Amino acid sequence: MATTAYEPNVVLSTEQFNVVGTRPIRHDGPDKVTGRALYGADFQAAGLLHGGILRSPHSHARIKSIDTSRAEALPGVRAVVTAGDLPATEPGGMVDYGEGSMDLGYMRQNVLAHGKVLYAGHAVAGVAATSLHIVDEALALIDVDYEVLSPVLTAPEGMADGAPVLIEDLQTQEFGERLTKVSNVAEHFQHKLGDVAAGFAQADVIIEREFNTATVHQGYIEPQNVTALWNSDGRVHVWTSTQGPFEVRGAVAAALDLAVSRVKVTPMEIGGGFGGKFPLYHDPVAALLSKKTGRPVKIVMSRKEVFESTGPTSGSQIKIKIGATKDGKITAAQAFLAYEAGAFPGSPVGAAAECVFGPYDIPNVVIDGYDVVVNKPKSGAYRAPGATNASFAAETVVDELALKLGLDPIDFRLNNAAREGTRRASGPVFPRIGLVETLEAMKSHPHWSAPLEGPNRGRGVAVGFWMNGGAESSCTISVNADGTVNLIEGSTDIGGTRVSVAMQAAEVLGISAEDVHPAVVDTDSVGYTSGTGGSSVTFKTGWSAYLAAQNLRDQMIERAAAIWDIASDTVELRDGVFRAKADPELSMSFAELAAQLNGTGGPIVGRAALNATGVGGAFAGCISDVEVDPETGKVDVLRFTIVQDAGKAIHPSYVEGQMQGGAAQGIGWALNEEYFMSEDGRMMNSSLLDYRMPTSLDLPMIDTVIVEVANPGHPFGVRGVGEVSIVPPPAAVANAVHRAIGVRMDRLPMNPVAVTEAIWKHQKK
Amino acid sequence: MATTAYEPNVVLSTEQFNVVGTRPIRHDGPDKVTGRALYGADFQAAGLLHGGILRSPHSHARIKSIDTSRAEALPGVRAVVTAGDLPATEPGGMVDYGEGSMDLGYMRQNVLAHGKVLYAGHAVAGVAATSLHIVDEALALIDVDYEVLSPVLTAPEGMADGAPVLIEDLQTQEFGERLTKVSNVAEHFQHKLGDVAAGFAQADVIIEREFNTATVHQGYIEPQNVTALWNSDGRVHVWTSTQGPFEVRGAVAAALDLAVSRVKVTPMEIGGGFGGKFPLYHDPVAALLSKKTGRPVKIVMSRKEVFESTGPTSGSQIKIKIGATKDGKITAAQAFLAYEAGAFPGSPVGAAAECVFGPYDIPNVVIDGYDVVVNKPKSGAYRAPGATNASFAAETVVDELALKLGLDPIDFRLNNAAREGTRRASGPVFPRIGLVETLEAMKSHPHWSAPLEGPNRGRGVAVGFWMNGGAESSCTISVNADGTVNLIEGSTDIGGTRVSVAMQAAEVLGISAEDVHPAVVDTDSVGYTSGTGGSSVTFKTGWSAYLAAQNLRDQMIERAAAIWDIASDTVELRDGVFRAKADPELSMSFAELAAQLNGTGGPIVGRAALNATGVGGAFAGCISDVEVDPETGKVDVLRFTIVQDAGKAIHPSYVEGQMQGGAAQGIGWALNEEYFMSEDGRMMNSSLLDYRMPTSLDLPMIDTVIVEVANPGHPFGVRGVGEVSIVPPPAAVANAVHRAIGVRMDRLPMNPVAVTEAIWKHQKK
Repeated sequence: MATTAYEPNVVLSTEQFNVVGTRPIRHDGPDKVTGRALYGADFQAAGLLHGGILRSPHSHARIKSIDTSRAEALPGVRAVVTAGDLPATEPGGMVDYGEGSMDLGYMRQNVLAHGKVLYAGHAVAGVAATSLHIVDEALALIDVDYEVLSPVLTAPEGMADGAPVLIEDLQTQEFGERLTKVSNVAEHFQHKLGDVAAGFAQADVIIEREFNTATVHQGYIEPQNVTALWNSDGRVHVWTSTQGPFEVRGAVAAALDLAVSRVKVTPMEIGGGFGGKFPLYHDPVAALLSKKTGRPVKIVMSRKEVFESTGPTSGSQIKIKIGATKDGKITAAQAFLAYEAGAFPGSPVGAAAECVFGPYDIPNVVIDGYDVVVNKPKSGAYRAPGATNASFAAETVVDELALKLGLDPIDFRLNNAAREGTRRASGPVFPRIGLVETLEAMKSHPHWSAPLEGPNRGRGVAVGFWMNGGAESSCTISVNADGTVNLIEGSTDIGGTRVSVAMQAAEVLGISAEDVHPAVVDTDSVGYTSGTGGSSVTFKTGWSAYLAAQNLRDQMIERAAAIWDIASDTVELRDGVFRAKADPELSMSFAELAAQLNGTGGPIVGRAALNATGVGGAFAGCISDVEVDPETGKVDVLRFTIVQDAGKAIHPSYVEGQMQGGAAQGIGWALNEEYFMSEDGRMMNSSLLDYRMPTSLDLPMIDTVIVEVANPGHPFGVRGVGEVSIVPPPAAVANAVHRAIGVRMDRLPMNPVAVTEAIWKHQKK
Repeated sequence: MATTAYEPNVVLSTEQFNVVGTRPIRHDGPDKVTGRALYGADFQAAGLLHGGILRSPHSHARIKSIDTSRAEALPGVRAVVTAGDLPATEPGGMVDYGEGSMDLGYMRQNVLAHGKVLYAGHAVAGVAATSLHIVDEALALIDVDYEVLSPVLTAPEGMADGAPVLIEDLQTQEFGERLTKVSNVAEHFQHKLGDVAAGFAQADVIIEREFNTATVHQGYIEPQNVTALWNSDGRVHVWTSTQGPFEVRGAVAAALDLAVSRVKVTPMEIGGGFGGKFPLYHDPVAALLSKKTGRPVKIVMSRKEVFESTGPTSGSQIKIKIGATKDGKITAAQAFLAYEAGAFPGSPVGAAAECVFGPYDIPNVVIDGYDVVVNKPKSGAYRAPGATNASFAAETVVDELALKLGLDPIDFRLNNAAREGTRRASGPVFPRIGLVETLEAMKSHPHWSAPLEGPNRGRGVAVGFWMNGGAESSCTISVNADGTVNLIEGSTDIGGTRVSVAMQAAEVLGISAEDVHPAVVDTDSVGYTSGTGGSSVTFKTGWSAYLAAQNLRDQMIERAAAIWDIASDTVELRDGVFRAKADPELSMSFAELAAQLNGTGGPIVGRAALNATGVGGAFAGCISDVEVDPETGKVDVLRFTIVQDAGKAIHPSYVEGQMQGGAAQGIGWALNEEYFMSEDGRMMNSSLLDYRMPTSLDLPMIDTVIVEVANPGHPFGVRGVGEVSIVPPPAAVANAVHRAIGVRMDRLPMNPVAVTEAIWKHQKK
């Protein structure tokens, strides 16, 4: 196949920018701070019914029967649906739902359980009624007869011989081949580079450790919600909070066996996602309830449902072995990564394997990845999915190696840092990346050289890698007579991307960011745009806006040339002014030409659509100061600095916001957050009171340093900044804990219990 | 200035069409027949306030004072606004509001009266409150002290010496010059062709008659409505029923002194417009009330308000003089057209002057037009505005001439018919038009030759002309993976234009009309598109869709070529299949390529924007059989046929619907409809019970014949079909009445009173 239109062959301009790199107020700011922005739960429609989901109380059970008759007889109940209302599944179909894809049968089985329930919280039936209270009453009237089975709650448990099997026809995919044996291991893959045995033989020091991390949730503020209307023309309209309107469209269509264009998704504002607002849950249930009733049906999850029934990120068991020479050169590394997929195959272990040794140039590597089903909700993406667990493990071992070799931990990392040309064990070779610059910025930061005095205090560092993503994006831009433009995009805006995308269009057109009016519209009203994930929006939709603005600019140049009756190649747009290159008398501002368009041939619309490749990988490093209370095991973070390569920071404030947000989440993951499970597999802390996320009182001000090593694959050098910031914090905190009290932490969270137990164990040695 | 991109230089294709000319179900049909479609009155929002307007009970009065304090003190009232809340007006600004433009000061004065009220129903103040009942109570608590003045109710009254003057600084614009004298005549213009005195000197027969027509209303089912939110970011969002979202945007912005892009208009579905849903009324009032309260404010007119406070079409006084030779050649024609503008300048007399002799090739013509302000609501556009009154007059005289000359009325018209090359008195020369073909179709229609027996029965004919319109339109089209496309347009859909526009895109792409999903979106989400008026949408937005589809097709051809690794000029799209011209093995259906786009370079979006010129004028002719009850004067229409040149009928069913709808409205205007005014200028029949529009019981089945003389200025030959059908019916009915009972009717409506009086007058002769 020949190359297509938008292969990345853009050379980064070195000119000064007028808009890129400044800090205008985001367009959606006033609506969000005044409460005017419309979220899914705000959605209202005439004749709206409320819906709710009956969920399994058991983590693993066979469904012997479901009797909905008492619920259906309750006054006010308009419809009840169960798995039998979903289309029957032909085996083999896969559905892309944004950050990953999923077998269609598993997806439907997760939407409404059929035959078995695989986690406490698994959806069993849906009800629509005229009020929420009737919904609750009706759910209690549905009689489900369960045969309770023993659960499997962690990857090692799931992999153990004789473990209860969740999916009774799940045969392991090993190195790409399907095994005949049924087990909980959905997949085992391996990346190899060089000769790892020879590499370890060259090493003077080898360290091997095992780590275990708990299941954690993204903790977005806004629960999942949906309203669906199955219209009488056969089209299904879905209003929902999502990171991927087009992925929801595709997944709903697949779940309901409809052509994609039969589904229209209107993305409402989104109150946080972090990867968790991609997968499909109650949307097809609401659609089926609407089909039965002819009315729109709205379902809004409770916080308990968010924790127990949506995808957290995987708990994991990780083993790391790294060897290095006396002069500080890593010769070999090995990783064993066993990740919980939750109830259905599909943990982020693949991404973990990409990232575990991502920051290092290591000649000999073996990485084994295992995707293991367990009786927890199907895992979902969470900010750099899989990378944080893996980096916690690898960066702890790297720290231990540096200490043992008597080397400065930053110098040791610099000594082995990946750079342009480094090959990863999975195959890809790095283009220009910014790890060395990030490490050097850490080293020269005042935090690194500041004295840290007092007992039980320590300073740790760690770095992390994330690949980032690109893919499809479409934009259209039209001109208003007052010299402003309207920008239509399909990327839902979580972290300020309306403005970071608008700025890239403004830069091309020579107008201000405020003079671009961005709008995120429904799936009928913009070309295909892949979801807001993989730190991709400022990269791909910014690029799409850049191209659409160029398409617009070229037409405006033609129009100016037509008005002046000169050739269009003699006209240029510079600093927001159209000029005849050869005649200084002929010039018009953007606004002056905009005002004339209708009368001189008509309006002008620019458009672009691309599949953005040329993604630039991102690196971040953290410096963490902690104080440990040796009596209680409580860890306080005293000071925290994050340094990150943004490529080009289009809007530095929102880059800093992403860095601070990721660091805060990483610290929460490091110290407190976990799914606390009962022995029979129920989550015991499914409220924001009991699931302890850090508040502003728990955190210091998080200092940020943006490093800008431009990504040559993007017109403005953008890399993507949303995810890598969460990768290094747990390791940086763990390494700081070691410097503070001499104890190596090998599990997450490092909560007071874990730290106290580690202290006791250390003292026994 | 050089020519611009989209000058009409398209040669009409003579190939067979696959989609154009068929009758698919309209895309908005299911929503409209199931009640799911959302109209402005359906709009809901959190915190919504209700608004209402205080209106003048007097047709002409000075406002001495307005005291809003009692209303403001009423619990539940949140804000009251009067004219003082509008920005002060600098003289001279004109605002385009779709079918016409208006002085900004007059527009504001019509929105909220300042100093004087000029009609009973004129808005004086606005109130926002928490319920509609409180709004009504508050309106009654606003104390306005009026000094009542004498009204002027018709054009002749307004033009009379010593008539009360409505606008105290209104100086007549005569032949383009401003006179110093103040009067109610806003404008007097004249069109001249040839030497009219010499022309009449050549005539063997000259007939001169005077006609008077009453003010009539469009009678759309859905009253005007608006919800406005003045957002905290300074942008005003307006949801409204309108024919012109971009015109509303412009007019609201002008009225409130905002840049156009500070206003966003979301057009709701529209329950009829016929021209009347263009002008600006309560929208700025709702916006000001929202600004004061910080909340969305909704105002929905009552039927009484629709009649008394929105723009009907003009009553008129018309004098026609036509001379012809014995052998049936018209030698000269003269028209005096005095049209009521309502309270502010701007009647459709200009269009009347274009149309009055539009069907005829007359060498010597003088047309005088007068725009006269009177104490009635400012006139609005109504389907072929101005033409119906003028054609009633002219076609009655033509009929009388034919009778007097002993010629068949159709042959007499054919003998003098305008055709390609005929110059109109206003200047333009006709391109290819279809009047002759229309007259020939009338002549050969079974209705024309069918016997009509029985007393007091007669058959009349008449023809009419309307210019049609074009102007700006923008479309974007994106491809779905299932082989369908989404079409974004800015033309609100009154009569089925979603489908007639979609069909033109489908024709280009070789897919079905059902596989195009059209969406009418807000003013932020599509390029500038002028309003749904002038029968322009299927012409201009169809053309825009045609160009956008070509833009899309060209990119898809490039993609197919890239996939096949061949040159793109060797690939063609034929009947929905991409083919390599030189290799019959290489072919892909539209759907097959659509499914591959994302993976082969990304999505594809097509776009177009144009200012569509090349409009083709439209002609229609009617044959009407009536029976007159000589005792009561009641006229029954027994049979009615309308023949109309559509250019190319994209969707014949909706062309026929327009023809039937226009004919029905024309018959209503002919026989019953009128503003029945009290002597002091109040409308006495402002309800649908008293303002008598024809129902299905009043009308026969209206037969339709579509003539297709392609407009060479449009890629599919479209002319525009929405308006001309209303032009000939009153004259056809009047001519039939004459054949039935020998009485010439010289006024509209020809209701029982008018017919009885005419019979008495005729008997006295």
